[in-house]
Amino acid sequence: MVAANLKTNINTQESTHSKLADLRDSMLNYDLDCYFIPSVDEHLNLYGSEAKQRRAWISGFTGSAGDLLVGKNLAWLFVDSRYYEQAELQVDSALIQISKLGLEENLTLIETLEKLAVESAQNQTKLRFGFDPFTLSVEQYQSWVKKFATAGIELIPISENLADKVRWRSPRRGSHNLAKTSETLAAIDESPIFSLPVSLTGESAAEKLARVREAMQKANIDVLPITNLNQIAWLFNLRGSDIPNIPIFISYAIVTTDAAFLFTNPQRVLAEIQQDLHNCATLLPYAKYPETLQDCVSQPKQIRVLLDPKHTTAGTHQLIIDRQSATESNIEIVFEANPIEGMKARKNPVEIEQMKSANFKASKAKTFTLKWLTEQLENGKVLTEFDVKETVERFYQEEADFQSLSFRTIAGAGVNSSIVHYGTPSPEITLKPGEFLLLDSGSQYLGGTTDDTRTVIIGEPTALQIEHYTTVLIAHISCAMQQFPKGAMGVQLDAIARSILWQEQLDYGHGTGHGVGAFLAVHEGPNGISKSVQYALEPGMVTSIEPGYYQPGWGGIRIENLYVVVEMPSKYDTVWYGFEPLTYIPFDRKLINADRLSKTQLAWLNNYHGAVVEKLASAIDPATLEWLKTACVALG
Amino acid sequence: MVAANLKTNINTQESTHSKLADLRDSMLNYDLDCYFIPSVDEHLNLYGSEAKQRRAWISGFTGSAGDLLVGKNLAWLFVDSRYYEQAELQVDSALIQISKLGLEENLTLIETLEKLAVESAQNQTKLRFGFDPFTLSVEQYQSWVKKFATAGIELIPISENLADKVRWRSPRRGSHNLAKTSETLAAIDESPIFSLPVSLTGESAAEKLARVREAMQKANIDVLPITNLNQIAWLFNLRGSDIPNIPIFISYAIVTTDAAFLFTNPQRVLAEIQQDLHNCATLLPYAKYPETLQDCVSQPKQIRVLLDPKHTTAGTHQLIIDRQSATESNIEIVFEANPIEGMKARKNPVEIEQMKSANFKASKAKTFTLKWLTEQLENGKVLTEFDVKETVERFYQEEADFQSLSFRTIAGAGVNSSIVHYGTPSPEITLKPGEFLLLDSGSQYLGGTTDDTRTVIIGEPTALQIEHYTTVLIAHISCAMQQFPKGAMGVQLDAIARSILWQEQLDYGHGTGHGVGAFLAVHEGPNGISKSVQYALEPGMVTSIEPGYYQPGWGGIRIENLYVVVEMPSKYDTVWYGFEPLTYIPFDRKLINADRLSKTQLAWLNNYHGAVVEKLASAIDPATLEWLKTACVALG
Repeated sequence: MVAANLKTNINTQESTHSKLADLRDSMLNYDLDCYFIPSVDEHLNLYGSEAKQRRAWISGFTGSAGDLLVGKNLAWLFVDSRYYEQAELQVDSALIQISKLGLEENLTLIETLEKLAVESAQNQTKLRFGFDPFTLSVEQYQSWVKKFATAGIELIPISENLADKVRWRSPRRGSHNLAKTSETLAAIDESPIFSLPVSLTGESAAEKLARVREAMQKANIDVLPITNLNQIAWLFNLRGSDIPNIPIFISYAIVTTDAAFLFTNPQRVLAEIQQDLHNCATLLPYAKYPETLQDCVSQPKQIRVLLDPKHTTAGTHQLIIDRQSATESNIEIVFEANPIEGMKARKNPVEIEQMKSANFKASKAKTFTLKWLTEQLENGKVLTEFDVKETVERFYQEEADFQSLSFRTIAGAGVNSSIVHYGTPSPEITLKPGEFLLLDSGSQYLGGTTDDTRTVIIGEPTALQIEHYTTVLIAHISCAMQQFPKGAMGVQLDAIARSILWQEQLDYGHGTGHGVGAFLAVHEGPNGISKSVQYALEPGMVTSIEPGYYQPGWGGIRIENLYVVVEMPSKYDTVWYGFEPLTYIPFDRKLINADRLSKTQLAWLNNYHGAVVEKLASAIDPATLEWLKTACVALG
Repeated sequence: MVAANLKTNINTQESTHSKLADLRDSMLNYDLDCYFIPSVDEHLNLYGSEAKQRRAWISGFTGSAGDLLVGKNLAWLFVDSRYYEQAELQVDSALIQISKLGLEENLTLIETLEKLAVESAQNQTKLRFGFDPFTLSVEQYQSWVKKFATAGIELIPISENLADKVRWRSPRRGSHNLAKTSETLAAIDESPIFSLPVSLTGESAAEKLARVREAMQKANIDVLPITNLNQIAWLFNLRGSDIPNIPIFISYAIVTTDAAFLFTNPQRVLAEIQQDLHNCATLLPYAKYPETLQDCVSQPKQIRVLLDPKHTTAGTHQLIIDRQSATESNIEIVFEANPIEGMKARKNPVEIEQMKSANFKASKAKTFTLKWLTEQLENGKVLTEFDVKETVERFYQEEADFQSLSFRTIAGAGVNSSIVHYGTPSPEITLKPGEFLLLDSGSQYLGGTTDDTRTVIIGEPTALQIEHYTTVLIAHISCAMQQFPKGAMGVQLDAIARSILWQEQLDYGHGTGHGVGAFLAVHEGPNGISKSVQYALEPGMVTSIEPGYYQPGWGGIRIENLYVVVEMPSKYDTVWYGFEPLTYIPFDRKLINADRLSKTQLAWLNNYHGAVVEKLASAIDPATLEWLKTACVALG
C-alpha cells in the first residue's frame, strides 16, 4: 500500500502570491478564464520527479493527489479526505480555497467550472478553460468533452505548460532541456539507465516487441505511441531511478509495424546497452518524440493508431489530431487498452521466480523484524514507530540485490494503525501494551517487487481485538483459498473476501488487492481485486490480498500477502485457477480465535504456517527458527 | 426461470420458399443486399404476440431467441446452444443456413455481414444492410454504427417492416391496423385493458407521473418516449393480456413536462378507466405515436429528449432524427436509463405486501404439490413429468385472484432436470426412484408475481446427489443470509453465492438471480444477481436467488426462492441491507448433509424451515400441516 508523499521542502507560502500573479499574466496571452494544474506529470505519474510537481511548486501542497485550478482572481485546490488536514497546513487559504471533496458545500472541479461558466454566460461569453493536454489522460479529456459539450465551457488545450513557463522562464517540457535549468533536475536527467538480463526478465526486448507487433497486427494497428513509463521499462527491459520507489525513467516510446523508438536522454544509456538496443529500436532524444510521432502517423496509406485512453496522454492525442488537420493524413485512431498492459501483468516463469525470490527476502526481513520486536518488548525496551520502520528497512537492505523501498514504510501504533496511508512513523510515538502495531512495507530487489502487511498486538489483546482480527483473517483466507474459473474478475473475489466482514456490518474503504509489477510499480493494473475491477484474473498475474478493518480512535487491522494466480489441479477436466503465496510471514496467533474458522479455513492457516517454517528454515539462524516454529504451531 | 417457447403451429416449411422469394422482391425496392428479421417485436419483447413473430412466420423456427438474416440468395438463422436441435427440426436448411453460435466455423451475424461486405468490396460497392429500426434497441443500433463504421457496410433503416408487408400485404405496424388483417390479431387488439386500484399498487398513476417528472426535471429532460410495455403498464397502473405470461398490453407512451400520452386501441379501455386516465394522460390510438412524438420534440425552444439505450427502439430514435433534419429543430438527445426502471424495481410497501401475498399462495400451492407427490409415490403410483406440471398448476389456480402462469412450468425428471429451460414436461416420462425432479414454476396473481424452484429426490438419494444438493443449498443460503452495504451490486452477491461451488470446481451457466416485477414480468431489471449486473441492490427490490448445478446425463439441481431487499437492524449506526424471503416452501431434507453447513448457515436453514411451518400453518389442512412439520424438523 503506497503511502502519502509528505515532503514539504518544495515551496514556501510567501512565494505563492507572486507565482499565481505570474501565472495569471501568462494566462492573459491565451485569454483564459482559468487554468488547470493537476498533480500528475507528462507520464501521468502521481509521484513524479520534483521538477514536474507543478501543483506543489505553486500551491505548497505536497500530497500525492489533489488538483489545482487557477482563476482570474480566485484559485481552488481539490483534495480528498486523506488530505483535508495536510492541505490546511500547507496552503495559504487567503490565496487558494481548499475544496474538501466529499464534504457538503465543497464543489468538485467540474462543479466549480460549471459555476464559473454560469457567471460567464451572464456576460454572454463561454468560459475559456486552459490546460496542458500532456498532463491529462485521453479518458479524462474525453469525459470533459462529453461533460462540457453543452455547459458553456470551451476547452483550450495549450501545448506549452504555463506553470513551467513561470517556473523556468521556459515553456519546454523535456527532461533534457529542463536539466539545463535546475541542478535537481540534472541529477535525474543524468542518472544511468540500466538493462535487465533475460535471466531476470525471461524475455528479450526483441521478443517482447514481436509479441506487441503480433497483437497490433491482430487489431490492425500501425502505430502504438507509449507514454506510460512502466510500459516502456517493461518493453525494453530497462530500468532507472527517476521516480521515487519505482525503478523507471522519463521517456517516450513508439512501436510501429517495422520500427521502434525510445526517447530519452541518450547520454544516460551506456554504450553497451545502446548497442543491444540498436538491434530492435532507435534511441532518440526525449524532445524528438512529438515530431517522430507525427512522422509515423502521416503516410501515403491509411494509418491506424492505438491510443490507450487510461494510459496515453491527451497531449499525444493532440499531436496526432494536429498532424491530421495540417496534412489531411488518413489517420484512424483506435481507443483500446495497450496490449502491453496485459502482457506485463501476466508474468512469465522467470519473472515469477524473481517475484518469489524477492518476496522470500522480504518475508525473511519482516520475520526478523517480528522476532526482534518480541524480544525487545520482552526485555522491557520502549520502542517507537520509527524504531520499527528503521529496523524493517535495515533488514530489507541486508538482503542481496536490494535497490530501494517499493513505497514509504507504514508503521502505525495504537490509533495510528487506523490511518490507512500512515507514512510518517514517529520517533515520539511508543508502542504500548494492549495496542496494535500495523506494519505495511516493501522493497525493490533486482528482478522483483514486494509488499506485505502484518498487524500484531503489543502485550495482550482484548476480546474485541481478537474478534476483529479473526474476522479480517477469515476474509484474507476466504479470498486466498478461493478457486475460480477462467474469466472470474477482481470484483468477484473482492466480494468473497468482504462477505465475512459484511456479516458483522463491518467493511474497509480500500480494495482487497492490487496488481504488483515485477521490479516495477508496487501498484499496477490492469488486474486487481476491488469493486471497480472488471478484468479477469489469469495465471501469472501477481496480486495482493489485503482486507482490513479500521476504526478511528480504536485502531486498525490489515493482513496482506502477495499471491500469484496459478492453474489448480483439475477435478473434472475443467480449468480452475487459484492463488499461490509469494509471502511467508507468520500471523499473530495471539489475535486468532481458531474456533471461528471453518475446517477448510483452519486447514489453510495451519498449512500456510507450516510452509512459512519450511520455506524460511534453511535461510535463518537457529534462534530465529526456534522463535518461528513457536509462532507457527498448528492452531485449533 | 422463463422457459423456451416451443409453439410450432405458425408455419409450414413448404411455404418458407415463397415467403423468402416475396421478401427478396420487396428488398429490391430498396436495393438491399440483405435484410434483418430479429425475434423481438416493436417493444423488444422476446415473447411477443403471434402477429409480431415475423422470424417464426418466415423461417418456421419458433424458439424465443434467434435472429434471421435474408440475403439475395442465401439466408441465415443464428441460434444459441439452447436451440441447436430445435432449429434443425423446424428449419429447412436447404433454404436457411443454421448458424450455431459458439461452435467453430459458425459465424455470428456480425461476422456474416463482414464476410458479405468483403464480397461486395470486390465489386467496389458497400453492402446495403436493411432492417426495421423499430425492432432494434438504440444500444444495438449504436453498436452496429460503431462496428460497421469502417467495415464497408451501409446501414439502411427502413420504416416499413418488409416481413409484415409480405405477410399482410400492408406495411402497417400498428396493432389496431393489423387487427383488420387477421382474426388472431383482432382477439389481442380487442382484449380489455384493466386498471389496478391503489390498494394493489400503492401509488396512483398521477403520483407516479409526478415522480417521473421530478426525475426528468432533475436531468433537465423535456420529453420521455416510452416503448417498453412493462414501463407503460407500471406507470399507468394498467394491465392487459397481449403477451403470454406477462399482463401487459401493446402500447406506446410519452411523458413531457406538462402532458402525458398513452397510445393503444382506445376501444380496449373501458369508459370508466378512460375517465380516470383523463385526469393525468391523453389516450390516443396506437398509430398516433410517431406524429405525436415528432410534435412533442419540435418546439421553438431547445428540447432535451431522454432515450434509454436498452429499452427504447432505434425506430423511436429515427423518428426524432427525421424530425430534427426536416425542421432543423433544436433537439438534444440524452442517452440515459429511463428513470421508470429504477422506480418500478423499488417496490413500495403496498407492492411488497402484494408480492408477499402472491408468493404465499404460490408457496402453499407448491407445498401441496410436494405433499401430493410424496403420498402418490408412497402409494406406489407411477407419476409423469406432466402429472407434476398439471398438479402444481391446478393448485395455483385454486388460489384466489389467479390470473395466469408467470412462465411455462419446468418439471424435469432424471436427466431432464439438467436442462435449464426444460419447458415441455412429458406425459411419457415417469419419475423413477433415485432420480431428481426439478420443479420450477410460478404464477401471476392480481397484484403479484411468483417464481420458485424445488429439486427433490424420488426414493432414496446417492451420496453424490446429497453432496451436490448440499453444495447448491449452501450457495443459496450464503447469498440469502448475506448482509451488504448500500451500493453493493448484483455481481458481488453472485460471487458470494458461487464461492462454495467454485471450491469444488463446479459452476452454473446462468445468473444467481433476476429481478421480479409486481404483477408484471417474472424477469425484470435493472437489478439482478449475476456477473453482468453492476446495479446496486436497494430496499424494496425483489430478486430470485437460484444457484444450481447441472450435469448432462446425470441430472440437475436448482433451489430458488424470491426475496425482497430490506434494511437490517443496525449494529453500529451504519446502513446495512439484507434479504427477506417471499417464498416459504420446505427444502428436501433427504438431500441435505447438515454436517457441511456452518453454524450460521444451519441456523438460517432451521429458522427458515420454522418460518415455513409458522407462515403456512393457519392456511393449510391438518394433514398437510402434519406432513409439513415433519418436512421442517430442525436439522443438525
